[in-house]
Amino acid sequence: RIDAKRLWDSLMSMAEIGATPKGGVRRLTLTEVDRAGRQRFTEWCEALGLQVRVDAIGNMFARREGRDPSRPPVLMGSHLDSQPSGGKFDGALGVIAGLEVMRTLHDLNITTEAPIEVVNWTDEEGSRFGHSLMGSGVWSGVYSQDKAYALKDVDGVAVGEALEAIGYRGPHPARPFKADAYFELHIEQGPILEREAKQIGIVTGAQAQVWYDAVITGQDAHAGTTPPSTRKDALLAAARVIELVDATMRQRGEDGRGTVGFLQVHPNSRNVVPGEVRFSVEFRHPLEAEVEVIAGSFPAAAEAAARANGCSLQLTELFRIPAQPFDQSCVALVRDAAARLGYSAREIVSGAGHDAVYVARHVPTAMIFTPCKDGLSHNEEESILPEEAAAGCQVLFEAVLARANR
Amino acid sequence: RIDAKRLWDSLMSMAEIGATPKGGVRRLTLTEVDRAGRQRFTEWCEALGLQVRVDAIGNMFARREGRDPSRPPVLMGSHLDSQPSGGKFDGALGVIAGLEVMRTLHDLNITTEAPIEVVNWTDEEGSRFGHSLMGSGVWSGVYSQDKAYALKDVDGVAVGEALEAIGYRGPHPARPFKADAYFELHIEQGPILEREAKQIGIVTGAQAQVWYDAVITGQDAHAGTTPPSTRKDALLAAARVIELVDATMRQRGEDGRGTVGFLQVHPNSRNVVPGEVRFSVEFRHPLEAEVEVIAGSFPAAAEAAARANGCSLQLTELFRIPAQPFDQSCVALVRDAAARLGYSAREIVSGAGHDAVYVARHVPTAMIFTPCKDGLSHNEEESILPEEAAAGCQVLFEAVLARANR
Ligand SMILES: NC(=O)NCCC(=O)O
Ligand SMILES: NC(=O)NCCC(=O)O
Repeated sequence: RIDAKRLWDSLMSMAEIGATPKGGVRRLTLTEVDRAGRQRFTEWCEALGLQVRVDAIGNMFARREGRDPSRPPVLMGSHLDSQPSGGKFDGALGVIAGLEVMRTLHDLNITTEAPIEVVNWTDEEGSRFGHSLMGSGVWSGVYSQDKAYALKDVDGVAVGEALEAIGYRGPHPARPFKADAYFELHIEQGPILEREAKQIGIVTGAQAQVWYDAVITGQDAHAGTTPPSTRKDALLAAARVIELVDATMRQRGEDGRGTVGFLQVHPNSRNVVPGEVRFSVEFRHPLEAEVEVIAGSFPAAAEAAARANGCSLQLTELFRIPAQPFDQSCVALVRDAAARLGYSAREIVSGAGHDAVYVARHVPTAMIFTPCKDGLSHNEEESILPEEAAAGCQVLFEAVLARANR
Repeated sequence: RIDAKRLWDSLMSMAEIGATPKGGVRRLTLTEVDRAGRQRFTEWCEALGLQVRVDAIGNMFARREGRDPSRPPVLMGSHLDSQPSGGKFDGALGVIAGLEVMRTLHDLNITTEAPIEVVNWTDEEGSRFGHSLMGSGVWSGVYSQDKAYALKDVDGVAVGEALEAIGYRGPHPARPFKADAYFELHIEQGPILEREAKQIGIVTGAQAQVWYDAVITGQDAHAGTTPPSTRKDALLAAARVIELVDATMRQRGEDGRGTVGFLQVHPNSRNVVPGEVRFSVEFRHPLEAEVEVIAGSFPAAAEAAARANGCSLQLTELFRIPAQPFDQSCVALVRDAAARLGYSAREIVSGAGHDAVYVARHVPTAMIFTPCKDGLSHNEEESILPEEAAAGCQVLFEAVLARANR
C-alpha cells in the first residue's frame, strides 16, 4: 500500500513552490519557480537512489532499475508546470504519485522485472509559449526541437533561452526511446466523476483539439474625435470573433468547447480606439470530425467578422491534436486495479490534453483520473481530498507493478 | 511674426524625447521620459529668462513679466505627456507654440501690459492613471489633490509617488490663481478642418463625456473540460458589453462616441476560460443631454449583459465632464486674429477633452485648432505640416498679445 500521508505531504510541499495568496500555484514553465520545483523533485528522487536524466527539452526521467535492465522501462508521470493562476494538483499529482510509487517499492524492497521511470514533462500547460504538451510533443516528434526552441513568450523570451537560463537544457536527446508502457495519473479537471460519485476514471482516450493565434488589425484613433463611420476598432471586431467562437461551441451542444482565453489590446489606452488585438482561439470535441468541420469553416467566418468591422484578421493554426484512444491492454490494467481495490470507477474521455496523448503515439499508454471539487481546474481554488489522491496513487501503483512484472 | 522654422525645430526636438520606431512618441505622464521632456522645456524657458514654477500636481508655469506685474497673467499652453503610442503634436504643439510666442516677444523686445505664462499641464491624456485632464482637474478643483495623489496605474504606482520619483511635486499650491485668460492651441485630432480645407478652427467649446471602469467577474475554468452550460466566461460577457457600447454610440449617429480602449484579461491563459476582465468604457456627445441619457441607462444594460452570461459587473463612474462652452470674448480674439491674418477658418466643437475645459471653469478661455492629416490622432502616424503649426502659432500670438495689452 502506498503511504497516503507521505503522498499528501509531498503534494503540499511542492505546492509551496509558486504558492499564490489565493491558495493556488503559479509555477510557469521554465521560470525560476519551475526550476525550484524541478530541484525539489530531483532531491526527492536522488534520496531514493533514482538516476535522474534530463533531455534537450528539459523533460526529466528518474529511473529505478529492474531485475532486467535491458527491458524497456515502464514510465509514469505528468508535469510540474502550472497555469499562471493554477491549482496545486493539475500535473503535480501525477509526478508526486509516481514518486510515491517509487518510495513504496523502496519501502517494500520490491525489485520489478522491468525498470520503472517517473517523468516530469516540460511545459504541459502551454500558457507561456502557446503550445500545450510541448515537452512530450518534442519527445514524440510532433514538434522539431528547433521549432520548439524558437517559440517565444509574450516578452520575447524563447524556449531555448529559458531552458539555458534555468539549467535544464539536458544532454540526452529528446526523442522516443523504447518504453514498455506509460501511465499518467491526473485529476479529471471536469465535473463527471464528482457528479457520479466515482473514485476512479478509467481514461479511454482524449478528445480532439485545434489551437489558433489571431491578430486583428484596425487603426488607432482618438476616441473623442473619430466618428462611428470611420472607426476601425480592432477590439469591437475581436468581440464579434469571441461571440463566433462561443456560438461555434454551442452549436455542438454540451460536448462542444470553444475558448478565447488570452487577449491583448494595443495600445490599450482608454481614449484610443484600439488598432490591434492579439488573441488565442481553441476548439475541442470528443469527435475528431467535429473539430475538422470547425477547422474548415471557422477561419473564413472569423475573417468575415473582422472585415465587416473594417478590420483584417490574420489567423495562424498553431496545432491540431487528433482524438487519441489509449492502449487497450494498459486501460485494462487500470480497470482491473480499480476493481481489485474496490474503487467505484467509470470509463471517461479526457476533456483536457495530457502528455499521455503524445506519448501514446509511441508507447502503450493509459491514464487514471481522480475527481476534483466542483470539477474546477485551471483555477486557484482547484481542490481534492487526500483520500482521492491516495486512491489514484494506489491504482497507479498496481497498474505499474503489474505491467513491470508481466 | 513668429519664427516658423524655430517652432518646427523645437517640435522635432521635443519629439525626440520618447520617440518610437514608427515615428510616434511614447512620453507617458510622470515617467522618466516625461521628466526629460519637462527638463528640455525648462531649459528653453530659462534661456529666455522666464521664471518656471511647479505646483503640487506637477503643472509647470513659465512666466514673462508684464509692465504691470500686479495684473493677472494671460495663460497659454497645453501638455507634454502623450499616449502610449501617440503622435508628436498632440499637446506638444500648444506648449512649444507658447514657447515660440515668448521667444517672438523676446526677439521683438515687446513688453506686454499683463504678464504672460506658458503652461505645461500634468497628465492630460489620462491613459496612465485613468483620469484625463488630471493636472488641470486638480488645479481647477475638480479633483482633490489627495484623490489625485492616490490614483494608481496598472502596476500599482500612485500619482503621488510618481511625482516624487521624477522630482515634480512642486512647492506651489495646485489651485486656481487669478488669471486674465487662457488660450490653448491644439491639433484638431479629427477630420473636419482637413475635409473643409480650413487652416484654423475657432473652438467654441468641448463636448460632454463620461468615463467608467468596469470589472466583469466570472470563473476561471479549464477550456477543455468545462461544458458550455457551466461556463462563466468573463471575456464573452465583456464582448457583449463592448458590442453594447458600440450600439449605444451608433444609435446617436455620427455625433455619438463610445469606446472600450483598455482591456485586461485574467488569468490570460489560452486554455483557461477567463474569470475576470477589467476594461474602460467612455461615451461622448456634443449634446450634454445625450451623455446624461447614456449615463442613465448604460449601467443597467451592461449589468444585464454580464448577468445574461453568468457573470457579474462592477461599474464605477470615474468622472463626467459637462459640455463646456468657451468664453465669448476670448473666442472673438481668436476669430479676429484668424481673419486679420487671412486664414480660412470655421467654428468647431472639440471632440477631445482638453485642459482648457477645466481651466474655463475659472478663467476666460478659448482654443485654436489646426488640421491634422487624415484627422488621425492617438496614433503614431499623427502628422501636420510646418505651415499649419505656424498658422496656429501666429493666431495664438495675436490673440494673447491683444488680450495682454488690452
Ligand atoms: N491537463 C491540462 O490542464 N492540460 C493543459 C493543456 C490543455 O489545455 O489541454
Ligand atoms: N486632446 C486629447 O487627446 N486629450 C485626451 C483626453 C481625451 O480623451 O479627450
